[in-house]
Order: sequence, then C-alpha cells, then structure tokens
Amino acid sequence: MVTPLTARDTLDVAGLERLVERLVTGGVSGIFVLGTTGEAPSLSHRLRREVVEHTCRFVSGRVPILVGITDTSIVESAQLAGAAADFGADAVVTSAPFYFPAGQPELREFIEELLPELPLPLMLYNMPSLTKTSFSREVVAWALGQEKIVGLKDSSGDLVYFRKMRYLAETARPDWSFLVGPEELLAETVLLGGHGGINGGANLHPTLYVELYQAAKAGDLSMTRALSEAIYQVGKHGSAIIKGLKCSLSILGICDDFMAAPFHRFHEAEREVIRGRLGELGIVE
Amino acid sequence: MVTPLTARDTLDVAGLERLVERLVTGGVSGIFVLGTTGEAPSLSHRLRREVVEHTCRFVSGRVPILVGITDTSIVESAQLAGAAADFGADAVVTSAPFYFPAGQPELREFIEELLPELPLPLMLYNMPSLTKTSFSREVVAWALGQEKIVGLKDSSGDLVYFRKMRYLAETARPDWSFLVGPEELLAETVLLGGHGGINGGANLHPTLYVELYQAAKAGDLSMTRALSEAIYQVGKHGSAIIKGLKCSLSILGICDDFMAAPFHRFHEAEREVIRGRLGELGIVE
Amino acid sequence: MVTPLTARDTLDVAGLERLVERLVTGGVSGIFVLGTTGEAPSLSHRLRREVVEHTCRFVSGRVPILVGITDTSIVESAQLAGAAADFGADAVVTSAPFYFPAGQPELREFIEELLPELPLPLMLYNMPSLTKTSFSREVVAWALGQEKIVGLKDSSGDLVYFRKMRYLAETARPDWSFLVGPEELLAETVLLGGHGGINGGANLHPTLYVELYQAAKAGDLSMTRALSEAIYQVGKHGSAIIKGLKCSLSILGICDDFMAAPFHRFHEAEREVIRGRLGELGIVE
Amino acid sequence: MVTPLTARDTLDVAGLERLVERLVTGGVSGIFVLGTTGEAPSLSHRLRREVVEHTCRFVSGRVPILVGITDTSIVESAQLAGAAADFGADAVVTSAPFYFPAGQPELREFIEELLPELPLPLMLYNMPSLTKTSFSREVVAWALGQEKIVGLKDSSGDLVYFRKMRYLAETARPDWSFLVGPEELLAETVLLGGHGGINGGANLHPTLYVELYQAAKAGDLSMTRALSEAIYQVGKHGSAIIKGLKCSLSILGICDDFMAAPFHRFHEAEREVIRGRLGELGIVE
Repeated sequence: MVTPLTARDTLDVAGLERLVERLVTGGVSGIFVLGTTGEAPSLSHRLRREVVEHTCRFVSGRVPILVGITDTSIVESAQLAGAAADFGADAVVTSAPFYFPAGQPELREFIEELLPELPLPLMLYNMPSLTKTSFSREVVAWALGQEKIVGLKDSSGDLVYFRKMRYLAETARPDWSFLVGPEELLAETVLLGGHGGINGGANLHPTLYVELYQAAKAGDLSMTRALSEAIYQVGKHGSAIIKGLKCSLSILGICDDFMAAPFHRFHEAEREVIRGRLGELGIVE
Repeated sequence: MVTPLTARDTLDVAGLERLVERLVTGGVSGIFVLGTTGEAPSLSHRLRREVVEHTCRFVSGRVPILVGITDTSIVESAQLAGAAADFGADAVVTSAPFYFPAGQPELREFIEELLPELPLPLMLYNMPSLTKTSFSREVVAWALGQEKIVGLKDSSGDLVYFRKMRYLAETARPDWSFLVGPEELLAETVLLGGHGGINGGANLHPTLYVELYQAAKAGDLSMTRALSEAIYQVGKHGSAIIKGLKCSLSILGICDDFMAAPFHRFHEAEREVIRGRLGELGIVE
Repeated sequence: MVTPLTARDTLDVAGLERLVERLVTGGVSGIFVLGTTGEAPSLSHRLRREVVEHTCRFVSGRVPILVGITDTSIVESAQLAGAAADFGADAVVTSAPFYFPAGQPELREFIEELLPELPLPLMLYNMPSLTKTSFSREVVAWALGQEKIVGLKDSSGDLVYFRKMRYLAETARPDWSFLVGPEELLAETVLLGGHGGINGGANLHPTLYVELYQAAKAGDLSMTRALSEAIYQVGKHGSAIIKGLKCSLSILGICDDFMAAPFHRFHEAEREVIRGRLGELGIVE
Repeated sequence: MVTPLTARDTLDVAGLERLVERLVTGGVSGIFVLGTTGEAPSLSHRLRREVVEHTCRFVSGRVPILVGITDTSIVESAQLAGAAADFGADAVVTSAPFYFPAGQPELREFIEELLPELPLPLMLYNMPSLTKTSFSREVVAWALGQEKIVGLKDSSGDLVYFRKMRYLAETARPDWSFLVGPEELLAETVLLGGHGGINGGANLHPTLYVELYQAAKAGDLSMTRALSEAIYQVGKHGSAIIKGLKCSLSILGICDDFMAAPFHRFHEAEREVIRGRLGELGIVE
C-alpha cells in the first residue's frame, strides 16, 4: 500500500481511509503497509507509527495487516514492531539492514537477535536491489526452523531464486507463505505453486490482481495469459511505479500524490499522460 | 551444446558425434553450438570453425543448427558467420560485443553493421551478466524491423524483461522466436506463450527438457510442475553448470570433460559426488 | 570517531570521554561523530542525539565538531541537525539518502529541501559504495553556489573524482574544505592540494595521522612516504576497520568494543591477533 | 598507443609511423600497443599481428615495446605472444580473460598455464572495470615468485590497491615495475614511489606526460601540481578518451580517426569542439 501524504510529515488520513476501502472491497487477501511502495524508509518514525495506527483502525479486522519494520537500526525495528502489535497488526516484515552490507552470518544473527523482540510473526522480505543483500539459501534454511518466521516475500525479480526457496520449504514448512514482489511475475509464480503477490499495482486496480491470482490458482491458462498481459499494459505506462501510482490515485480522487523526499509528484504534463492512459485502460472515463 | 575437448586446442570429435546423437535422438528441436555453455569465447577461432564443421556433418540436416558468433571483433564475427554458412548451418546468434561496454546506440549500430555481412538469419542473444550490456527495448524495437533478425534468446534470468520483449514483438513479428536461457524458467516461459529454451542441462538429459517443453506447451500444469521440480533437482547438484555437465557426460561415456582455460575439470572427489547424484536421479545406475 | 557502546542502545559514556581526550590531545583538527565509522545508521535516533550531546560536552570547544545527519528520512535528518545545533556542534554532514537511489536532480532537490532546515553549515559526504549514489559534477557545481554548504568529504576512494571536484571549486569557493575518506589516500591528497582527511584509523593512532598530514602539507616527501607506509601497516592487520578499531581501543583500555547490529565484536582468538599486532606496531607493550 | 585505422580491418600504416615518431621523439620510455586504448579486443587477430609488426619496425629498438595479448582464448593469447617475440617486441601484457569471470584460483592457473608459452617477459594488467576481475593480493603474491613476470599495470583507478601491491613487492621483487593506468593518477603514484604510467593521453601530448613524470620523480611539488592540473584540463574536454584521442590526432594530421566497432569517429560538430579545445590548450594554432 502506498502511504498517502499531504506534506513531508503529515499523513493524508482521509485518503488513507479511501485507499483502505478500495483495497478491502477490491478483494485483497491482506494489506502490507510500510514497504518499499509505502516509501517507509523516507518517513519519520513518528509518521510510520501513525500509518499503522490508522490502517489498523480503518481495516478493522476485515483482512490481515502486515507491517514493514525494515530499518538500519535494530532498536528502531523492534520499537516499530511493538507499536504494530499494540495497534492490532497481524505480522511484521523485515528485509536486511541496508546501510552496512551484512554478510550472511551477520544477516542470520541480525534476524536471530530481532526475533525475541517481536510480539508478532515475521515474514522475510528479500529486496537485494535496494538492500544490497539477499537472504541466502543457508539463511532461509535456518529461518525454516524458527517458528515465529512464517514466510518470504521475494522482490528480487529472480524467479529461479524464488522457486529454489519454495522447494526448500516444501516439506519443512508447508505453512510458509511465498509471495512475489514484481507484479509481472504473479502469474508465473502462482501457476507453479507460489501463494500470491504483494504488488504495488494493486493500489490502483486491486480487482485485476485478485482476478489474475484466482485465474492462475485455478490453472485457467488463457485467462491467466490475458490478465497477465493487462498487467504489463498497466506497467508500461509508468503507472505502476510509486510516483505513477500516487498520481493515478490522485486522479481517481482517492488520495493526495505528495511524495516523500527525495522524490516529487509528477508535473502537470506527466499527470496528463497518466490521465490519458488511465482512460485507455478504462480505469477513468 | 557443450564443446567436447581432449586438449586446449583439440576437439573430441568422437565425443561430439555421440553428443549430437544423444541430442537429436533425445528429441531436441535444434542445436546451438558455440554459446556460453559451449565455452566459445575460450576457444581458438580455428577450433570454433572445426566445431561447426563437424556438428553440421553429424547432424546432417535432421534439426536446425544455430552457431554462436559472439566476439569482441566484428571482423571475427563476420568471418565465423561466413564459415557457418559454408558448412551448412541454419542461423547465427550474437550477443553484444563484451569488452568495451557499448551504449545502446552503439549496440544498434554494431548489429546494423554486422547484418549485411551475414549469409544467415540472426538471432539476438541477451546475456548481460557476461557481456555487461542488455539489448534495450529500443534496440529490440529496431531489430523487429530487420527481416534478417529472427528472434531473441534471453539468458538474463529476468522474466519481466523477457515478456516485455515478447509483447513488443507480438503483432510486428509473430514469426520471431523467443527462447529462454536459464532452464529453470523454461516452464514459466512456455506456459505463458514463450517458444522454448536453449538450456545447458539438455546436454545431459535431453528428453527431460523436451517433455517439460511439451507439457508446458500443452498446458498440463501438474506435469509441468513435476518436471520443473525435477529440473531444479538436476541444477541443485551442480550438474547443470558447464563443469558439471562435462563431468556428467564423461561419466556417461559420452565425451571427455576437458575444460578450456580458465577452467579445469572436476577433481576425482567432486566427480564421485556427481556420479552419486546421477545415480539418485536415475541417469546412471 | 567510533561510537563507544556497552549495549545495543547504551552509550559507553566514560569510554567516549576517554576517546575524545585521546583525539583532542592527539592533535586532531576536528571531530566527526555519527559517520560510517561511528555506525550511525545502526543506532537509534535517541542514542544518536546522546552521542552529540556528550561529545560536545567533552570537547568543550577545543576543536570543531561535525555531526553526521545522513538518514533515509529528511525529517529525521532535519531533527538531528536541530539537536546538533542545540548541543553546540559546529557543522553537519550528509550523504545521499540511501534506500531509494536518488537520481542526480532528485539528489540536488533533496539537499535544496534540507538546507533551510539546517541551523548549521553543511558538508557533503560522498560515499557511493554504501549509498549507491555519488554527488555528480553538476550537483557539486550547484552546491558551490550555496553559501551554507562548506565542503566535501569524499570516501569514494576515487582520487580522480576527488581532484576533479577540487579543481571545480578552486576559484568559485576557495573556502571549501576537501577531505578524503580512505586514510590510505591522505598523503596523496594533501601533497597535491587537498585539505586533510576524516580517517577512522585516527581513533587508534591520532598522532600518526596528524604527523602524516603535517609532513604532506610541508611537502616533506621522504617523511610522507614513511608515514604513509606505516598507515598501510595499520590497515593491513584489520585494525583500521570498525571492528578492529573498537577491538584495539578496548585492548588499550579506552572504551568498550560492543558493536551495533548487524555486527558483533571480535572473538577472543581474533582479539589476540589484534593484540599481537598492536604490540608489533608499538601501540601496546 | 591508439591503433590508427583507415577501415574496419585496415591499418593506417603511414599514420602509425607518424604516431610512433611523435611518441619516441616526445621522450616516452616505452610503447604499449594493443591495450584498451589500442582497441585491441575489437581488432581481428590478423590486424593485431600487423600492428605489432609495423610498430616494431618503426620503433627500431629506440624504446622497449610492450604488446597486449589479452584475449578470452588462451590459445590466441599464446599465438600472439609468439608473433610478438618474432617481430622483436620486448614484453607482453595480459589482463584476466574477460568473458567468463575467473575466480582467483582460476586466474592464477590461467597465468600459470600461459607462462610456459610466452617467449617474452609478462606484465600483468589489472583492468577490473572491463574484465570483471581484479588480480587479488594472493595472485600477485604468487606472481612475485615467477621470474618471467616483471610488473603490474593497474588501471583500476584504486590507488589503495595500487600501493598495497607495490608494498607487497617491495622486498620480494624490487625489479618489478608498477605502472598506473588513469593518467590523472600519474602524479600521486610517482610522488609516493610508483614507476610511471601507461597513459592514453600521451598519444596526444607525450611531452606533457614525460615532464609530469620527471617533476614527480624529482619531488618538485609545485611543478607536479601545475602539470597535473594541466592533465585534468586535457581530460576535461573529452580529448583523453579513445574517440577524443583519435579525433585530436586526426586534427593534428597524425593519423586517421576511424574507430573499430562498436564505436564510431566523432561527428563534425564534436570535431569542431575538440579542435577549439586543442587551440585553447595550445596544441594546435
């Protein structure tokens, strides 16, 4: 979920409520706040807690809520996890600490040190292009032995990695969830046994992603192909990246398109392009 | 296809013949020589021509032969393409020149300059991890307008890229072939409309790959899942990389496992491990 | 300056005092807290403020204090800068925000948005290996026009970049400071007109670095060569990286060697190796 | 030395003769052909031999000639080394094979396998930005024990690496030459004990580089600073990269500016810019 903002350190609370409604009524199986698409690392820690608080209030138990606690400081991660539990979230999600590149043993120790601090189940978040570190086969094998760890979200774009990790877990932890990041890979992933996606584009068009997931899960190949191609169409027009998502949501009247630094909202000309494409896609008239 | 060698500059001609037979009778749709798995850049230009000559002779028209002409020198690439035509090959394949990293305009100009020299159709070969350069959307769009270019082999491992390029070609050049490099992606690719794979592992176990291709093409999801998992099993044991392939083929009595510099064949201990695994996989007794 | 800790979120205040004394009496021209060597991104924001507060108190105006405010959130950076001014620091230092890789225009805008929030002069900190982004020639040229920006600390290890930036500033801003990160480059930098270094190794052996700086500034080539080689000797033994520095300082009785996650202090065996080398270097008996 | 060409596979023999004269009378200590600036990997093997043959003839023993034999095929490298000896060259130079990224043990074995084939002394050439592989400390330590290896040319731009390797050789092999690639680092290198540079810019302005070398060797800091700044001026105008060098040499009437694929000579507009700058630098009227 994107984080609707009206200013650098001000949440667009009304926009957040509309966005939550759009997602929940669009049929999503859960909501992930404070991920990459949520611009979490760019937000103050105070605002991050505010996002969790309001989201939990608006969702009100209708779907599970996952909270990103990725940070460079384990102390801040643990504090945010505590707040997430207090507000009623269902799980937390962390990638590798991302300033110092941790070696694999250090990455394992980092998770090991974090686990006892967490009042909620933990999902690992593999995001090497931004964190400079991937969870290795060895670390994932270790994580399979930790009851509190419940799954892996893989945004590496590397389907070979994704499926290797999934095969690794197959007998040891059939309860683990394997979710894929790049939305363009949702179809392939689910067709061959993955569990779903955490896909930024679903902010804009949740039903499309829900339908693709259902078609792939049912093994309906022709429907899967058609919907998958539709998702590439969304992506092609720059409306699936964070700026484009916020711009699109603003055009739809859902929420403000203010971006946290170092980014800025699209200018009017780019906004017109997005508006035109939303029209072509039938998302606005 | 791997390149069987008995010494640094000596082709294992008898081994090559056995390997060609294994592949053709295994049901492959074509043979690609002098690719990455063929260690082409590590071979002398004289030996590269010898590989083409003997392969053409052994295949004898039963399946099409594609010849890798990737080189840092356009003059050498053109000369090898000429030889390939003389020996009776069906197409040539080139990636980007890989010492100087070419910008995209330069990459396009490189292909443009090479085309008139080629007596055979050309397939592009995207291999950014080794060539430092990917064929951009713009270059592929240009290539779609060149009659002599007939397809793209993508070994990037990036399925999002692969499918973007495929969608790009869909109406402009329905005759293009889109083939995938990493064998672990063969299933996904074909399920969603790709045309096949050029997969090193097929040297070892051609029927497995042919069956997976056919299952995916027929939309048989449970068979696709089972065979795809089998391929991950092959890969897991290091037998799908070049050294492992040659070692396995040597254990099977197909050809020598001599590696071109800078690599060396597996030592006896590693060879024993591979032997054990081939047994587990049911490939040797 | 390293950040002495006794636990994950507990400052080693007495150790900090001893370290400050070592540096100030060792003749350094200034103290930089909360940089990379200070493990700043791994510390809670509360602890970061505590470091600044105590350092300012212990230094008590004897040398200028620079405070690292690098963060992924501009709001947190601005708040820390405010605290730094309140505690009496002299300048703040920021690198690029380091989760999302900012393009150069975005990097310029980020600094532009940050500047009015800063009650202190700003030094730029180029650290591309950890932030994924370098300050480009264009951004540095723009920064030369901002009165509040007073210099560049370059930890890229790329001396060609360093000198290009220095020549760029030569007439426009002769007041700028150009300081180099990797201590092994201190000699070269100062010999050819740079202003000094911010070098982790100075925690351990401040007088060595002060003497090298003075020799290079005086153009004493033979002394520069000898001292420069000595610094390579320090580095060779792993005592110049953060873990090694903290271990060495602990052996010397200066401060605790607790490391912030994801790192851990050296084990006893490694500690013995460091102890032996400090002996060889004449730093302990 | 750049490789003057009049067409894709045609040497500009008269231009080569003028260029050799310019360099030798400009006072260089030796000539390095078929390096990166010589576009060697882009040339046919036939043309590479022709370059060596004519250069040896034109130099006629006045300065030593080093020949780059870097290739992806050890067979081709060995054959070119043989030809170089036959034509009367003095040494050969090789970087790592650059298609397959060799691990360090494989890199050592590659050099070990190459050595007995070489009729001439060998200098190592560290060029990781193009070969993807750096010669590690361990490989250099091994090389110090090989009598036939006589030095290291380092084009990594990493002065810390350069000096670490130099200190490593100091007692073991005081006869080794340590030469630096990026010309902007020539001054620093020589001031602190390096032996010189192999610098593309010397094609254009050999005396400038010779004077800088002499000033740095003599420890004349103010002259070193002035000349070093002059070299940055040359580089700033794009005349120090291969295209710019060939364009400048063509303006000076030395040789043709034909570039081997995938590159092309500058267009007229860029050529005018270079002409203007050569005027400002006082190289043409």
